[in-house]
Amino acid sequence: MRLSDIAGPDVAEIVREDPAALGEGLRAFHPADISELLAGLRREDRVRVLEHLDDETLGDTLTYADGETLKLALLRLSPRRIAAALDTLEPDDVASALSVVPEEKRSPILDAMSKRDAAAARGLLRFDPGTAGRLMTDKFVAVTPQHTVTAALTELRHIDPRVATVANLYVLGENQRLAGVVSLRTLLPAHGDATIGSLMIDEVVSVTPETPQEEVARLVSKYSFSALPVVDDAGRILGIVTVDDVIDVLVSQETENMLRMGGVAAEDSETRGTFDYFGSSIVRIVRSRIGWLLLLFLAGTLTGSVLRHFEGQLSQVVALSIFIPLIIGTGGNAGSQSVSTIIRALALGQVRLRDAGRVLLRESLAGLLLGLTLCVFAVVRTVLWGNTPQLALVVGLTILCVCAWANIVGALVPLLAERFNIDPTVSSAPMITTLVDATGLAIYMLIARAVLGL
Amino acid sequence: MRLSDIAGPDVAEIVREDPAALGEGLRAFHPADISELLAGLRREDRVRVLEHLDDETLGDTLTYADGETLKLALLRLSPRRIAAALDTLEPDDVASALSVVPEEKRSPILDAMSKRDAAAARGLLRFDPGTAGRLMTDKFVAVTPQHTVTAALTELRHIDPRVATVANLYVLGENQRLAGVVSLRTLLPAHGDATIGSLMIDEVVSVTPETPQEEVARLVSKYSFSALPVVDDAGRILGIVTVDDVIDVLVSQETENMLRMGGVAAEDSETRGTFDYFGSSIVRIVRSRIGWLLLLFLAGTLTGSVLRHFEGQLSQVVALSIFIPLIIGTGGNAGSQSVSTIIRALALGQVRLRDAGRVLLRESLAGLLLGLTLCVFAVVRTVLWGNTPQLALVVGLTILCVCAWANIVGALVPLLAERFNIDPTVSSAPMITTLVDATGLAIYMLIARAVLGL
Repeated sequence: MRLSDIAGPDVAEIVREDPAALGEGLRAFHPADISELLAGLRREDRVRVLEHLDDETLGDTLTYADGETLKLALLRLSPRRIAAALDTLEPDDVASALSVVPEEKRSPILDAMSKRDAAAARGLLRFDPGTAGRLMTDKFVAVTPQHTVTAALTELRHIDPRVATVANLYVLGENQRLAGVVSLRTLLPAHGDATIGSLMIDEVVSVTPETPQEEVARLVSKYSFSALPVVDDAGRILGIVTVDDVIDVLVSQETENMLRMGGVAAEDSETRGTFDYFGSSIVRIVRSRIGWLLLLFLAGTLTGSVLRHFEGQLSQVVALSIFIPLIIGTGGNAGSQSVSTIIRALALGQVRLRDAGRVLLRESLAGLLLGLTLCVFAVVRTVLWGNTPQLALVVGLTILCVCAWANIVGALVPLLAERFNIDPTVSSAPMITTLVDATGLAIYMLIARAVLGL
Repeated sequence: MRLSDIAGPDVAEIVREDPAALGEGLRAFHPADISELLAGLRREDRVRVLEHLDDETLGDTLTYADGETLKLALLRLSPRRIAAALDTLEPDDVASALSVVPEEKRSPILDAMSKRDAAAARGLLRFDPGTAGRLMTDKFVAVTPQHTVTAALTELRHIDPRVATVANLYVLGENQRLAGVVSLRTLLPAHGDATIGSLMIDEVVSVTPETPQEEVARLVSKYSFSALPVVDDAGRILGIVTVDDVIDVLVSQETENMLRMGGVAAEDSETRGTFDYFGSSIVRIVRSRIGWLLLLFLAGTLTGSVLRHFEGQLSQVVALSIFIPLIIGTGGNAGSQSVSTIIRALALGQVRLRDAGRVLLRESLAGLLLGLTLCVFAVVRTVLWGNTPQLALVVGLTILCVCAWANIVGALVPLLAERFNIDPTVSSAPMITTLVDATGLAIYMLIARAVLGL
């Protein structure tokens, strides 16, 4: 039976009537499914279920839980209970669970944990959120270059069950320095007497604990690695980041980029982690948006300044103002298309800075073609609304110019951001819209002045 | 030495003077680095380097190459040469390489390949792009439930070197039916005489070849799997999808969602694959954008209809038209913030359909708070521009209402999309902007009529 086959309301009833039986029954399910089930329950019911899970199931469930459930567990269950559950986990999962609550709530839990595990977690919590140091685990398979294949395979049969992956064996030289890496796939078919030193790859791609998690994700995705070692300045191995953590980074990065493109701060200034929708207060939600919204509003007043400059024209031909929203809307849409295309091409490495010239040429050409098509529709619509052919010409020409202009700006801004090492997704889209709004209006009014002779 | 240390112009010179030496020298580098180097070269130089790579290096490089380089290799190198390179790869990599060229170009290459590999690749190419069938490899480790741990470990020492992963062993029952899965991490510390049947997990999460790749990625990411088996209707295992393919899916999905949010078709209607910026003609680029742009343009004419309705008011108070772009811009920005927040929360499972009521309440509250803040700035700005307090009141009130309204619409549209199983990223953002533009103007004009008594 799959857990999702049990309907939510039924579960809620069982929770209240016999939570102990439910806790017992859940042990058979995958922790990812348990955490999904929890997310569908009310907060009080969630706490009741969490209380009745055994330590190991509770620990596993916490590694898959969303921020709201995690916070609930850490704040409402006793520190001793949470500590016992966290003691069953790898240090990176402990650190990532603890990072959702403020410093002062962490200490009682860490104090109740086993000394070794608490020390490992404290070590990771020293690193900033969003770095390789926070993602790494110190449970990996280490061998020496002198090991034979047979000896290495025999040792593998006595590994710590919490080891993160057996796909790669890390070869340590003197002073714990990372000398090489050998994949289990290479090791398995090799001759038993061969030494690890003769099989290992000694040019290892590695990162430092301070490396941003986005760079870790980029490397793992570029080289199709299953894990990436983290070394200190002396080249000593501190831990490894595994591919499943990278997937979490990629998923949260995708949605964070979506936030940025929408003009919302992706990082919670308080926890420095990502936002949890219902886990954040309205005030924090408003705070994450007001900055950009206000900035864009102030930038947007520029459109008013442009129009004030042409107030005389507007009062002479009131019909001009009727097309204002359509013109700036079209410019904004064309700009958004261009900016998202270029950001994507940059992210996938299809476009580099040195291609800037080619990109701008292509985008202005594309803009002209798009503008030409819309121009036809614009002229027809203007005439159908009973306006003069002159006004139709003004609207049509403006749409054509604004499309080409918006495409150029939309391509230029991400390229400039890349040039100056700014993340191009940081509100590129709304910024460009605002920029194109004001300049588009100026184009409109200048064309109107020229054609209508105002 | 790292490959990126060699400057681009130097490489271009070596390519022309001694391509054979370069081909030889590149063998020592990671194929991901070689493909990155190639992407930085002119097309002719790229072909020259590709021609001088040995079969295995060429094959590996093609699995990491961007679409433009891949196409270049497949169209410009001889089918026999490409076939020899593809023969060194796993079937899923062969299929994915061949999928960038049209059907008629694939046949000569497949005909020149080894019979078995060609048959495997042809089998995969039968499945639609973007499905599990296209991503899977038939090279995996299979055992029976009767195997002992010792026997399984001994067999592992004779595996096909092209096997995709050794992390999981797939347990086959009668008629190749997937009976269970056992991870190598479980196997290694187990007693040598234990049977696979006693160690395996028999409730295996699997997909069919038709499962969309996004669903595959969701499952792998939800359960932190390192591979996912693909079975047919009878439960027979056809292959496995490995985590590195899932990462590629996630990366391209992220950037595709970006395109969609920007109102660009993410799928190339010709190859049914993703777009390659310089690999696509201008006409194809324009075609991928004109649909949405035109639709939004036509929807945008609604704003004109609204304003025409209030043309009398606009001619009485020309100053009203000066604030049109600011009001619709702010509405669009507030709506974008709300829509991207809700799409993200839905994607991360933080918000479900049953939370719709809570979400709408939160968003309208957030909208009112944001609107209130902007309202203050709007009133001050309007008065500073020398307008009457009445007009300032109109603009301030409008900003307040439009913010709240845009937040509600921005939350409602993704929720409705989710309800009707439409991908919420499909141009939600520009659609909402256009919708909010027209309704926002109506709100503006109605408030103006009421306050100014027009």
